[in-house]
Amino acid sequence: MPETTLKPVDYLFKAAFVVTLDEDSRVFAPGAVAVKGDSIAAVGPPSEVEAACQPARVLDYPQGLILPGLINAHTHAAMSLFRGLADDLPLEDWLNSHIFPAERHLDREVVYWGTKLAVAEMLLAGTTCFCDMYLFADAVARAAVETGIRAVVGEVLYDFPSPNYGPPAEGLRFSETLCRSYAGHSRVRVAIMPHAIYTCSPDLLAEAGELAARLDTLLVIHLAETAREVAYSRTAFGLTPVQHLHRLGLLSPRLLADHCVVLGEEDLDLLAASGAGVAHCPESNMKLASGVAPVTAMLRRGIPVGLGTDGCASNNNLDLFQEMDTAAKLQKVHLLDPTALPAPQALSLATTGGARVLGLAGRVGRLAPDYKADLIVLDLDQPHLTPLYDPLSHLVYAARGSDVTTVMVDGRLLVAERRLLDLDLEETLARTRELARRVRQNYR
Amino acid sequence: MPETTLKPVDYLFKAAFVVTLDEDSRVFAPGAVAVKGDSIAAVGPPSEVEAACQPARVLDYPQGLILPGLINAHTHAAMSLFRGLADDLPLEDWLNSHIFPAERHLDREVVYWGTKLAVAEMLLAGTTCFCDMYLFADAVARAAVETGIRAVVGEVLYDFPSPNYGPPAEGLRFSETLCRSYAGHSRVRVAIMPHAIYTCSPDLLAEAGELAARLDTLLVIHLAETAREVAYSRTAFGLTPVQHLHRLGLLSPRLLADHCVVLGEEDLDLLAASGAGVAHCPESNMKLASGVAPVTAMLRRGIPVGLGTDGCASNNNLDLFQEMDTAAKLQKVHLLDPTALPAPQALSLATTGGARVLGLAGRVGRLAPDYKADLIVLDLDQPHLTPLYDPLSHLVYAARGSDVTTVMVDGRLLVAERRLLDLDLEETLARTRELARRVRQNYR
Repeated sequence: MPETTLKPVDYLFKAAFVVTLDEDSRVFAPGAVAVKGDSIAAVGPPSEVEAACQPARVLDYPQGLILPGLINAHTHAAMSLFRGLADDLPLEDWLNSHIFPAERHLDREVVYWGTKLAVAEMLLAGTTCFCDMYLFADAVARAAVETGIRAVVGEVLYDFPSPNYGPPAEGLRFSETLCRSYAGHSRVRVAIMPHAIYTCSPDLLAEAGELAARLDTLLVIHLAETAREVAYSRTAFGLTPVQHLHRLGLLSPRLLADHCVVLGEEDLDLLAASGAGVAHCPESNMKLASGVAPVTAMLRRGIPVGLGTDGCASNNNLDLFQEMDTAAKLQKVHLLDPTALPAPQALSLATTGGARVLGLAGRVGRLAPDYKADLIVLDLDQPHLTPLYDPLSHLVYAARGSDVTTVMVDGRLLVAERRLLDLDLEETLARTRELARRVRQNYR
Repeated sequence: MPETTLKPVDYLFKAAFVVTLDEDSRVFAPGAVAVKGDSIAAVGPPSEVEAACQPARVLDYPQGLILPGLINAHTHAAMSLFRGLADDLPLEDWLNSHIFPAERHLDREVVYWGTKLAVAEMLLAGTTCFCDMYLFADAVARAAVETGIRAVVGEVLYDFPSPNYGPPAEGLRFSETLCRSYAGHSRVRVAIMPHAIYTCSPDLLAEAGELAARLDTLLVIHLAETAREVAYSRTAFGLTPVQHLHRLGLLSPRLLADHCVVLGEEDLDLLAASGAGVAHCPESNMKLASGVAPVTAMLRRGIPVGLGTDGCASNNNLDLFQEMDTAAKLQKVHLLDPTALPAPQALSLATTGGARVLGLAGRVGRLAPDYKADLIVLDLDQPHLTPLYDPLSHLVYAARGSDVTTVMVDGRLLVAERRLLDLDLEETLARTRELARRVRQNYR
């Protein structure tokens, strides 16, 4: 073959396994991935990829497994600062006596460092993209930009004053400005994020929906998380939360509904017909005793579902490997059906499913040409991943975040040999410990 | 203070936190543990312990947390060889078409290496003691002896011929010989382990119970694991599995009942009155869709409960940190009560609870003078464990096995800096990969 046919690429990754999550669910064993700029140039057997590429750098993992970076479809990253502050409490006590008082003292600096701490945890555990709803979303965006992770961020909106933007009406303006300032950014998008139907008036919800449509961006809301929320909605509006959004004209492919634990058949039908996506957060739903979301029923109806950890105060970790494991097992025991949510389906929630609900389908969640180069490498040479009969089974039921050795986002290496390459971890740990002392003082 | 008052000890451990799990649930921050021979000599604030001891070796973990080694109350260690061989299948298909055919080819060598692989995983994840029911229990015992871990092992007994001991009647003889050969061993005990009420005749169960009493050792059985087992028991004996054991006179403090998922009120009363212990295996019960064990109800009645992972074919890992997390969350969502099984209780299942159900109370599961020196150290200097408000919350909801850096069993250091000191990991991985190729060929 003449030399001139070789395409110059920046990286050639080789590994014992490449799990593509592509349309044919191909697994190459061994496999290779070529990366050029911010994108994937080629995926396939090493011989094929090597024959077509001239790499500037070769990264070879003879005992490694490469897969798309995981996507955390719902979190409040900066709440890593409240991890373990209050557990095992009734929901109202937890929120009113612990989380809300702690959040009253939030400022831009706290959110920035809390988010950086969470990004450090996420990257080290193989998460390359997250969807974040929180206060001071500009600080969240800044942390994402600086650390190199991919993110969809949004300022939380509700009917009461915010320590960030002040009076409620300012929330939409703040969101619009933030959204415009990130237009065209390669990694960070801004979405419109009203908190929930019980904290946002119908007017605010409708305005948020209009703004999201006008800016052509995602609309994200906590929805049908608890029986209490559904009861409130029925009393206040005579409708379920899903029906309420439907009447407001907000059910659409633009909508990402977080949790969706308490759904009736009609709710499922409405969601399915609308094209809206759902972020499933099993561990948070378990810890807060909200219930078990009907994920299997959603998937059967073709509702796009991603996987989220929720914030660290109700989990208390951001490990999507553990979340996949729990998601699969929880459906099985809940439905008393060991075939429910099998490993390949659980894995798709955290990859292709996440991409779809975040409006990033065709860009991330899959290893295929022209997709963004968001990929991770796991070290298989460990007792808990030995022997290996089925890589997908191991990814869901045996692997954990600490098995990730290498992380690339948008073509940039962020983790190698289990170490963050650019994020100043020591400073981040020191600053967040200092801020935690303030948190503890403030709220007690 | 005169020099002569200093007690010579082998090790002095110091750390930012020492979680003792003692009767007063004391946490020293900072704390120290002195070890002499195979036992703990002192626990307390560093200044106190240092003032009383003259250590040969000081191990200082300024960012570490020391706690008792975790106890896996139910597993089939060698099934690590079948990890990921077959998942997401109906129970009968899984057992009859996959696990049983694979097990037909078991021999001493396979069980030995499979157990060693599991021990490597367990030690690296902070488990210092396990209770194992399997075939070729002598090979399990040998692996435990050689690797330095603590274990209660037993040969699985049932009404059909075994590839180990041959005809059913030989099982009891084999068990007795094995038990006698380990009498007085510092780390390994042998118990009598009939498989279940649906695989063992009432006669075999009664004989097993007599033998356990005669040898003054534990009687271990899978009990009330599935609704199917309860239905069989009602049809065959007109009794629930627990009532059946009660009628056979087998409910006693000597009994360890694994799973206990499907229990009625009377079953709970019988267990509570008898002093029998239970091994709770939430992840296996979830994955096989058996149901949710009424752990909270058991604890309320004073039934001793330990925590088990079950075998790797139905979990598929041996990480007790993840198991504690899942245990706590599963009770909450099952009871729709966020206060159910709080972190301290979940932690006690894997430590003091495990010790109690294995007949090792007063010896392990706690950091206190005269207890065996089974302890582990976690590295807190990581983003997912920062900040730290409550060490017990982190241990249950945020930590994972890979946070363990140091492991001591019976006064002997087995893991340091996340590496096995004596176990030949490379050989173990190589041998088990080779055996796995045989497994795959044999059963297909």
